[in-house]
Amino acid sequence: MTLTPLILAGGSGTRLWPVSRDGMPKQFLPLAGERSTYQQALARVADPALFAPPIVITNEAFRFFALQQAEALGLTPTVVLEPARRDSAAAIAAGAAVAALRAPDAIVLAMAADHVILDEALYLDAVRAAEQAAAAGRVVTFGIRPTEPKTGYGYIRRGAALPVAGVFAVDAFVEKPDAATAADYVAAGYLWNSGNFVFRADVMAAELARFQPDLAEATQAAAAGAIADGHFQRLDAEAFGRAPRISIDYALMEKTEAAAVVESAFRWSDIGSWDAVFAIADHDRLGNAATGDAAIFDSKGCLVYSDDGLTVIDRIENLVVVSTPDAVLVADRSRSEDVKTLVNRLSNRREASEHRRGVRPWGHYDSIDRGPRFQVKRIVVQPGGVLSLQRHLHRAEHWVVVRGTAEVTVGDRVELVQENQSVFIPATARHRLANPGRIPLEIIEVQTGSYLGEDDIARFDDVYRRA
Amino acid sequence: MTLTPLILAGGSGTRLWPVSRDGMPKQFLPLAGERSTYQQALARVADPALFAPPIVITNEAFRFFALQQAEALGLTPTVVLEPARRDSAAAIAAGAAVAALRAPDAIVLAMAADHVILDEALYLDAVRAAEQAAAAGRVVTFGIRPTEPKTGYGYIRRGAALPVAGVFAVDAFVEKPDAATAADYVAAGYLWNSGNFVFRADVMAAELARFQPDLAEATQAAAAGAIADGHFQRLDAEAFGRAPRISIDYALMEKTEAAAVVESAFRWSDIGSWDAVFAIADHDRLGNAATGDAAIFDSKGCLVYSDDGLTVIDRIENLVVVSTPDAVLVADRSRSEDVKTLVNRLSNRREASEHRRGVRPWGHYDSIDRGPRFQVKRIVVQPGGVLSLQRHLHRAEHWVVVRGTAEVTVGDRVELVQENQSVFIPATARHRLANPGRIPLEIIEVQTGSYLGEDDIARFDDVYRRA
Repeated sequence: MTLTPLILAGGSGTRLWPVSRDGMPKQFLPLAGERSTYQQALARVADPALFAPPIVITNEAFRFFALQQAEALGLTPTVVLEPARRDSAAAIAAGAAVAALRAPDAIVLAMAADHVILDEALYLDAVRAAEQAAAAGRVVTFGIRPTEPKTGYGYIRRGAALPVAGVFAVDAFVEKPDAATAADYVAAGYLWNSGNFVFRADVMAAELARFQPDLAEATQAAAAGAIADGHFQRLDAEAFGRAPRISIDYALMEKTEAAAVVESAFRWSDIGSWDAVFAIADHDRLGNAATGDAAIFDSKGCLVYSDDGLTVIDRIENLVVVSTPDAVLVADRSRSEDVKTLVNRLSNRREASEHRRGVRPWGHYDSIDRGPRFQVKRIVVQPGGVLSLQRHLHRAEHWVVVRGTAEVTVGDRVELVQENQSVFIPATARHRLANPGRIPLEIIEVQTGSYLGEDDIARFDDVYRRA
Repeated sequence: MTLTPLILAGGSGTRLWPVSRDGMPKQFLPLAGERSTYQQALARVADPALFAPPIVITNEAFRFFALQQAEALGLTPTVVLEPARRDSAAAIAAGAAVAALRAPDAIVLAMAADHVILDEALYLDAVRAAEQAAAAGRVVTFGIRPTEPKTGYGYIRRGAALPVAGVFAVDAFVEKPDAATAADYVAAGYLWNSGNFVFRADVMAAELARFQPDLAEATQAAAAGAIADGHFQRLDAEAFGRAPRISIDYALMEKTEAAAVVESAFRWSDIGSWDAVFAIADHDRLGNAATGDAAIFDSKGCLVYSDDGLTVIDRIENLVVVSTPDAVLVADRSRSEDVKTLVNRLSNRREASEHRRGVRPWGHYDSIDRGPRFQVKRIVVQPGGVLSLQRHLHRAEHWVVVRGTAEVTVGDRVELVQENQSVFIPATARHRLANPGRIPLEIIEVQTGSYLGEDDIARFDDVYRRA
């Protein structure tokens, strides 16, 4: 009997702007450690002696991030695509339904892709306890033992102890409290509600059928009608679209008598704000935390996240300083939960939602310079990567290979272009770039023309089946 | 009778790092307004009815900045080059000696190139009063009427009123005071010592001969032995090297009985720190000042200087936030006088002294990307600009013209390369880039090779006579 991990990787969010943006959300970013939290989640459940191959559920926009970052770890999960954005109930229900198609009594471990979990051994202890209770028919949530009276989390009041050590019935789920109430909760032994669950797929289906029959029907049908598309499983769009937007707590956990909680002693963070990233990071003697190229002088309690160039702070306290290639944020750390609101106020700006860097199934690019009639990109194509066969009406492109060997198609001609060679793509010419080699291909692309928008592209063929 | 402006533009400094660095110091940067303070100084004395053609004194490293920024205003000053770094006494003495070679009784207006002066009419009032007193043999310093009890400035205690309205004998120069003493000084009518002067060239020579005979001899000889080099006057290096390092205040002003002070009611700043830049800037309703692409939310008393991308601040107070293409600084504004110390502590870093952007006599460049074996630059060549005929041993270069028309020499071949065309320069080939056109030429240069240092260059011919 092995657990089936279900990794919930469809969230998007701007609470960690400018690093996390809608175009590349936090679960795919290395915000705590070298790997993204999504990769950390995959690695946590990679032992085949304990876990079945994972199911990832995400959406269309993030599908290649999910696939590439798994492949970088040598893993090939089933990547289930949600055709529309719903809330956590639909994602968990659909994921559970996919697991049930493998084995109706599969025990599912549903994990958020954007949480940090430290203390692997304590985590596995909690998983094992939860698994036992789930096998007996419980829907088990991980209740984190609080380290402080946080007002940003929901809490769980424990009920009677269950036969499995460390697992309790749920007396109540309680909303985010004010500071005084939070202190009372911590004193009374309440636990943080982490939003990670273990359950039998058939139990989840039965409980949802009872409390959310519409949602249960829609997600079952969406899974049954899923279509394999390369590495992806596309849920049936029409069926999934019928699922109501509701969180799993409201939809089920607050209603079902099967709810249970496993007391979890591992360190955990939902990295839901820069303050949360700060809290989980390593700190220097004066309580500062830094990532990237940073120099800290006479400052206290600051988080510096430097993703572009050198960031220097001098005699400041309790601030968040985030530097990226096209945007810098300096904010009060203790009030960084409101960054989302601030980004909404920037909504007319490209920087609010899109990065200067773009990730594509064949690799990635960075827009390194632009002027009125030109743009310069550095393009990295992974070994085996193939860009679509395409044409631009308004721009010509000069490609200079600076690393690796390119296979370049222009019109009917295909040629190999080596490091230190260049090639010219006239406007209107059909062309394609590919990396047939064994090392990443890097090119500098200089675009010239009167219109340089990404939407000046006609695609004739694409190995990744993009529209 | 017209005044001869002497603009002191040789200072370098890091007190406004990361914008001002040794490679491009603050007097050549647009820190207060659209023009650099050096250009503002030139423009302030550009009226030929009132002022003779200016003399600029600076050093080798800044000579093309001084020339280009003057030419951008349609001016061609005499640019005198100091062969070594000495203090203000030697610069003023040498500049006065150059003016004396034009006319021995020339009246000189010595102005720092890195000061901001507002209220043009009040400034000219003070200049006219100083000029009258100088004509009568006084060495007149501008004493700024204090707006607050600053501890960062030296003060002047006035003596008896002189026959010219607004001009006084100097009772004493007093050092930078502590806060309480500064308040007493302001109450007692002391003036800030601005380091700008008006004097007759022959009076300056005579007073220096009396109090600083070595310095007087060295600088007279340096001026007499100056050699014209294109637009530049190079002071005799051997003679100038003998001049002691001393400030004009210590060398002369505190000793001479000719010292006088003109009370100056114009707004003035030496922009000697980010706090000083803040003080002279326009402020929003909550007392914030911003330059460049900035978004300010719920913050008070902050200076945002955004020279690269978008800079966002949220609920912070009294900070300086400076963003440049390769470095970000966040510091306590009230203690920003110590930025210089901080930069010294970064001294092993390129960013401490050099910009990513470089200014050259033919135009400028920006290093927009680099990797282990390549570098990408955007190069802008002004109309008429000609790079040196040169050769690299370790790198090849690809040039893509994105604006204008280039004249490209490779080996014995000279060709015109238009927008959207490219050219390849193999390693070891002699080559040259020039802009024969009427609009700026912009090219993207992709360098590839095993060594990409700026010192891999052999110059065979250079119209700007660089070494």
